[in-house]
Amino acid sequence: MNVLLTSAGRRTSLLQAIREAVSPLGGQVIGADLDPLAPALYLADVAEQVPRVTDAAYIPRLLDIVARYQVRLLVPTIDTELQVLAEAQGRFADQGCRVHISSPEFVQITGDKWLTMQAFADHRITVPPSWLPENLPAPDTLPERLFLKPRDGSASMHTYGIHRDELHKTLTRVPNAIIQKEMHGPEITIDAFIAQDGRPIHFVPRRRIRTLGGESIQGVTLSSNDHLGEWLTKVLNVAGSLGARGAITLQAFDTAEGYFLSEINPRFGGGYPLGYAAGGRYPQWLLEEIQGRTVESRLGDYRVGMYMTRTNTEIFTETPKW
Amino acid sequence: MNVLLTSAGRRTSLLQAIREAVSPLGGQVIGADLDPLAPALYLADVAEQVPRVTDAAYIPRLLDIVARYQVRLLVPTIDTELQVLAEAQGRFADQGCRVHISSPEFVQITGDKWLTMQAFADHRITVPPSWLPENLPAPDTLPERLFLKPRDGSASMHTYGIHRDELHKTLTRVPNAIIQKEMHGPEITIDAFIAQDGRPIHFVPRRRIRTLGGESIQGVTLSSNDHLGEWLTKVLNVAGSLGARGAITLQAFDTAEGYFLSEINPRFGGGYPLGYAAGGRYPQWLLEEIQGRTVESRLGDYRVGMYMTRTNTEIFTETPKW
Repeated sequence: MNVLLTSAGRRTSLLQAIREAVSPLGGQVIGADLDPLAPALYLADVAEQVPRVTDAAYIPRLLDIVARYQVRLLVPTIDTELQVLAEAQGRFADQGCRVHISSPEFVQITGDKWLTMQAFADHRITVPPSWLPENLPAPDTLPERLFLKPRDGSASMHTYGIHRDELHKTLTRVPNAIIQKEMHGPEITIDAFIAQDGRPIHFVPRRRIRTLGGESIQGVTLSSNDHLGEWLTKVLNVAGSLGARGAITLQAFDTAEGYFLSEINPRFGGGYPLGYAAGGRYPQWLLEEIQGRTVESRLGDYRVGMYMTRTNTEIFTETPKW
Repeated sequence: MNVLLTSAGRRTSLLQAIREAVSPLGGQVIGADLDPLAPALYLADVAEQVPRVTDAAYIPRLLDIVARYQVRLLVPTIDTELQVLAEAQGRFADQGCRVHISSPEFVQITGDKWLTMQAFADHRITVPPSWLPENLPAPDTLPERLFLKPRDGSASMHTYGIHRDELHKTLTRVPNAIIQKEMHGPEITIDAFIAQDGRPIHFVPRRRIRTLGGESIQGVTLSSNDHLGEWLTKVLNVAGSLGARGAITLQAFDTAEGYFLSEINPRFGGGYPLGYAAGGRYPQWLLEEIQGRTVESRLGDYRVGMYMTRTNTEIFTETPKW
């Protein structure tokens, strides 16, 4: 029961969470990366060098590693490898390896903020009112405050909060833009888990207290009393019906008018270590599914008020991995 | 023999390095911060809340902590507290506490890149040719490529590499600018230690391999063969004569024309954990000085080819410090 973590990078805590699940089964964790100094490689049982994700040799190389170590589960971590792995999951399944990924359709939807808004609004999930540059209504019918971002963007690149008067000027600066009503209220992040049959199993809502270079470095888990738990369950049911599988990460606004879904990443989020500490044992549940066991739903079962604060830890070596 | 680490923040490895030096003497490390989630507080023996560095109550509060715990050494970590602590070091000395800081004059010189260039050039240290907006020569006598930055800047904010034709346009964007010849060649960082009597004791030159959000997350220590060791010894002798004391961090360019000093921070640098791992036991030497012992010079004595790679480590709590 070996597990392969790709683009392992700085995902040392995710790697250790996987090891906690796989060790009792006698399995090992293999870390793969391009960078010989990727810290997670130094905590993995085995480190393997791979080409760039965009290289044609990437999937063949992973298939080779899967065969060599009889890998039963492959966990990708970065957005750029999701589409290619979603499409290749059948080839891995032929070797007895589950790729931890949603359906290709769900990966495509969530890779595009416009498609995400459309798909969830179609299922009556509250999302921020959204437009594309080619279907804008008359300017004076738009909300006064707007938020512009790329449909396929990440890490707050090319994002602008503006007055509607500035819309046409600002649009020229945003590649592949989506226009949304600017939402007021804290942004919340949710780690969640969907079973292989599409049932929502778990969620942990959390608030980012501080970020550094786009990474969440401080956060706290939130109560799902009032309407949050109910709204989240509805969102996760829709996600499951659209093809979400395994661990996913959601973003939402908590506003005076209720919760609004803004984004989904169909992978372990960078802040998942807090979800794990609060009770989201997602690697263990993935392994239970591989063993043919049914994972029971435990929505709402997590520790509220759990704080995480992150610091740097150094790994030293005089012999880089390659 | 207790030690106080101020603005402790994410300086967990520095805190642990200090503890390794102070524990054998039966001392404790007190961490002070404004933020109840500052990670270093959770590794300190005692955590103390302090106001903002800019608050008039900051120094009185530190003096109070020093008295309460009989602190013998205070180690500041961020630029904004250096000037105020350099000026107040006599008040701490009256309580038997050494502040780890250079002279007020040296802190003032190194807080201003123009003053730094002038002071070291006066002592025949190679620095990039530099000008102020008010003493620029005829444009066609300037180097073709220039680099603009604020005299008091940090973290690459408001910096521009430009052609001399763009100089006057770009100057309007740089507050409190210094104009320098653009240097070609890798930038190197040096952790160094100067004894209380101004003698250079130690250096560890390193190259930053990767940074994230302005922080060095991968690096390697460099050989001081060829001319680097000789040049560094000269720079550190001048620094000592100008008032540098204790641990300092230097930046230099390694160019085809030799080494050029670009910046000095009279404090422990963010990447100091690599210098420590390579043999720079600066906290121990500070404590030896406090005990009245003479620290012998060991220039060139460090491990070459030591790599550091940094990752996130999480601390969890349900009860923040305050």
